[in-house]
Amino acid sequence: MGPGPVNGDPRVLRAMSAALLGQYDPAMTALMTETQGLYRDVFATGNDATLLVDGTSRAGIEAALISLIVPGDRVLVARFGRFGHLLVEIAERCGAEVSVVDAPWGEIVPVERIAEAVQQVRPKLVAVVHGDTSTTIAQPLEELGAICRDAGALLYVDATATLGGNPVETDDWGIDVVTAGLQKCLGGPSGSAPITLSPRAVAVIDSRRSVEAGIRGPEDPEAAPADRIRSNYFDLGMILDYWGPKRLNHHTEATSMLYGARECARVLLQEGLDAAVARHRLHGRAMLAGVQGLGLTPFGDLEHRMTNIVAVEIPEGVVGDAVRSAMLEDYGIEIGTSFGPLHGRVWRIGTMGVNARRDAVLVTLAALEQALRRAGVAVPTGGGTEAALDVYAGEP
Amino acid sequence: MGPGPVNGDPRVLRAMSAALLGQYDPAMTALMTETQGLYRDVFATGNDATLLVDGTSRAGIEAALISLIVPGDRVLVARFGRFGHLLVEIAERCGAEVSVVDAPWGEIVPVERIAEAVQQVRPKLVAVVHGDTSTTIAQPLEELGAICRDAGALLYVDATATLGGNPVETDDWGIDVVTAGLQKCLGGPSGSAPITLSPRAVAVIDSRRSVEAGIRGPEDPEAAPADRIRSNYFDLGMILDYWGPKRLNHHTEATSMLYGARECARVLLQEGLDAAVARHRLHGRAMLAGVQGLGLTPFGDLEHRMTNIVAVEIPEGVVGDAVRSAMLEDYGIEIGTSFGPLHGRVWRIGTMGVNARRDAVLVTLAALEQALRRAGVAVPTGGGTEAALDVYAGEP
Repeated sequence: MGPGPVNGDPRVLRAMSAALLGQYDPAMTALMTETQGLYRDVFATGNDATLLVDGTSRAGIEAALISLIVPGDRVLVARFGRFGHLLVEIAERCGAEVSVVDAPWGEIVPVERIAEAVQQVRPKLVAVVHGDTSTTIAQPLEELGAICRDAGALLYVDATATLGGNPVETDDWGIDVVTAGLQKCLGGPSGSAPITLSPRAVAVIDSRRSVEAGIRGPEDPEAAPADRIRSNYFDLGMILDYWGPKRLNHHTEATSMLYGARECARVLLQEGLDAAVARHRLHGRAMLAGVQGLGLTPFGDLEHRMTNIVAVEIPEGVVGDAVRSAMLEDYGIEIGTSFGPLHGRVWRIGTMGVNARRDAVLVTLAALEQALRRAGVAVPTGGGTEAALDVYAGEP
Repeated sequence: MGPGPVNGDPRVLRAMSAALLGQYDPAMTALMTETQGLYRDVFATGNDATLLVDGTSRAGIEAALISLIVPGDRVLVARFGRFGHLLVEIAERCGAEVSVVDAPWGEIVPVERIAEAVQQVRPKLVAVVHGDTSTTIAQPLEELGAICRDAGALLYVDATATLGGNPVETDDWGIDVVTAGLQKCLGGPSGSAPITLSPRAVAVIDSRRSVEAGIRGPEDPEAAPADRIRSNYFDLGMILDYWGPKRLNHHTEATSMLYGARECARVLLQEGLDAAVARHRLHGRAMLAGVQGLGLTPFGDLEHRMTNIVAVEIPEGVVGDAVRSAMLEDYGIEIGTSFGPLHGRVWRIGTMGVNARRDAVLVTLAALEQALRRAGVAVPTGGGTEAALDVYAGEP
């Protein structure tokens, strides 16, 4: 019940152990193509360029940024937590001139401040985290696509912590590139990063395409473009050529992770995107009510909280890590703290993937009540579970 | 029976479906630490800095090169196949001034030519593929460590295709950095890249260390070093801080891939490194004798062939891909072709991981005889299996 990675869906875990296939076996390439289609639905997009990057969610972020950014490009980051810092850092390492619109941890960045900054900076790319798990806040994205498009900028969104449990409308919101991971609402293991790219984003990458010398055919240009992408592993042009009809070898696709990513999408789409979001919203609300019922103070702007995680302030005088250890060692339940300024100041409790479930919420609240009491906190008896049950009682 | 990825060991596949753990769960961090110890044995090294990079084998290559190379550094690559081209390309993208010692595909690079080039170029880093699967040739490495050390250069080796089936003596041969993958002799899925780094290599990385802004403590320096590593995801300084006692968060370790990598090492070490190499050598010899018994001509320098793969010339007048399709569709057996100048000119048949096995060799040869005959090749009846059985009969 931490901020992720969370428990894996049993169907996904089972898929991980399927027999391996050769990378050019038609059965394998068919699975790759099928998985692309599944993630188009997950991302709510028609983007042809939808695939997996072989690495954890931050591999997806880096692949997106390094493939789009030419050194010297202006990049604007809307930053309201740890993963906004990460976007800044990756963009800097890509050689970008990075500008930042900041908001305090626990708040969103007001959209009008982003719009102003876009006008001032005239960036090539605007990068923003959708839900920053470090603060549990979700940035509204609905208007950003139009703001960026009007200014000729691309919009990149890191939806690692929100996809599958919060609405992510890639096409409707006009987002050019979205990346994610499996280990949050998708209920799979870390290690595969779904990504989708708009035709506008692909056009930028197309202008930087090259073919590896060792597999070059007579029809391929020999010279690398002057602004060749600075990474081979994250060269989305090459990765697109591997996933596309050319099937030009790049890396060797991570077979088991592909199986897992495919099954995550199948489980999610079988439930239905809207139903999955509603489920995360319900159990997230129950958890929020529960921790409030235990007398804990939620952290941050509740109007803009992610559906799938709640942060609460650690009560005065309580050693946060001692309660976390008791929860894990005595009850087998993991909860998290956070990073940087919030380290040791908040606990973060997730309800995502298969853990967005009534019994998981109630057991966590029951255990937390006991652990808090033992840590010397005056907690209302049954305050957590009763409040959560009230939320559930109010549901049809 | 292709060049890899190959079939997974059943124990490894089973490990892939184990329940997920939180990344700071002591059970998880203990598995990470245990896996480091296992790979020290696999790499035959005492290097403390031994861990997994979360990505395919080429992620390990890029992590090694980008963490060691500062733009402008001189790098020397010994190139004798497709994956030597890859080393050149990655080093170039890291901003290195790259020099190359070439050998024709099918041959090794004579060690004296490498030594001369080291004297001329005075590189910071010498990079070489151990076994280049594109040509099936293994470069002798025994003397390179001393040559590099005497010239003050670091030695990097890509052992993706050899580790676990050919001797790889990291410390005895004086190699500074070795990277690998699971999908060849280790019998696991692609998607995790074991890596080991000597103290000399770690010292280079230490001089470029930084801590991410979002998780920085008051004791950490704020300014990034001037020669900050150009990638966040592949910043081995940060990855070492995550795997080391500080447990500074970086990516979220790919849990299932960790389980798989750990089980690959356990399976290998339980058999014993020497026994596994001997097994690959035996079944590789049987396969070589078998294809020769079928009248096929092996490709390349047989004195320096990898134990675990054999390349043969596609007979005149035969459409190579038609035979490959027949093998896969009619017999369920995959064999490969190669890349670049060898595409469509050779077939590559692997005997690695769980496929380095008597019945796998014999079934492949029996099927290949039939497929060749049907493709119009005059093949000696029983020539393949008989020759392989003769090899097996000569073994104690």
